[in-house]
Amino acid sequence: MGKDLAISTTDSDAALRERGSKFMPKFDASGLVTAVAVDHSTGTMLMLAHMDAEAIAKTRETGFAHFYSRSRRRLWMKGESSGHVLKVIEIRVDCDQDALELRVEQAGPACHTNARSCFYRRMVADGSLERVDD
Amino acid sequence: MGKDLAISTTDSDAALRERGSKFMPKFDASGLVTAVAVDHSTGTMLMLAHMDAEAIAKTRETGFAHFYSRSRRRLWMKGESSGHVLKVIEIRVDCDQDALELRVEQAGPACHTNARSCFYRRMVADGSLERVDD
Repeated sequence: MGKDLAISTTDSDAALRERGSKFMPKFDASGLVTAVAVDHSTGTMLMLAHMDAEAIAKTRETGFAHFYSRSRRRLWMKGESSGHVLKVIEIRVDCDQDALELRVEQAGPACHTNARSCFYRRMVADGSLERVDD
Repeated sequence: MGKDLAISTTDSDAALRERGSKFMPKFDASGLVTAVAVDHSTGTMLMLAHMDAEAIAKTRETGFAHFYSRSRRRLWMKGESSGHVLKVIEIRVDCDQDALELRVEQAGPACHTNARSCFYRRMVADGSLERVDD
């Protein structure tokens, strides 16, 4: 491999994370990365949550989005009670590997309020929020 | 206003945050919310960062995305050195108001690696990462 293509062994973890082909999630002090679920066909942002190593493993193993609930302090599968699961088509990772993009197919509303997306309001000029047409 | 439309004064902050038209960002212990910049025309996820109250105020005031850098511990305008600013077309907020979606127009690559998006790699079957065609 030419020198310009190789990642030097003296490169830091940061450089490996950024340029490499190895998945090296950079967990925060709580052992979490941020995960954003996006509709695979439309690109619509659906929800934002957190994943620990177990949630990532379960998601890869089952093909359905699992997260770590910070309030309930446990692993959960999105839709485990509502049935509104998210089938994961693709997992993308950002430059420093502390955020994941889950490209998914929805089986129902992503939001617990029954909105298709959790991002159902936009800010208007006076700073208040208005509902976005879905 | 009919009772079914009114938000009762006995409702919790959580209910107000979820159903109301008032922008009430729910900052974490560090005073931050998560912000995801998305290309307004294509829906492509570009980058994920954090905003404090000042970053939100500056973004609204100037129309350009400002964030709070946790590593540098300061406010920064995306593109302040590279020129690759993000013009904010719309700000959306999620159900519990701890995450923002910034719908933007890019003036250049969003990623410091010069990729259009920070999410330039996807996971393949063996768990390694491959470059996504841009």
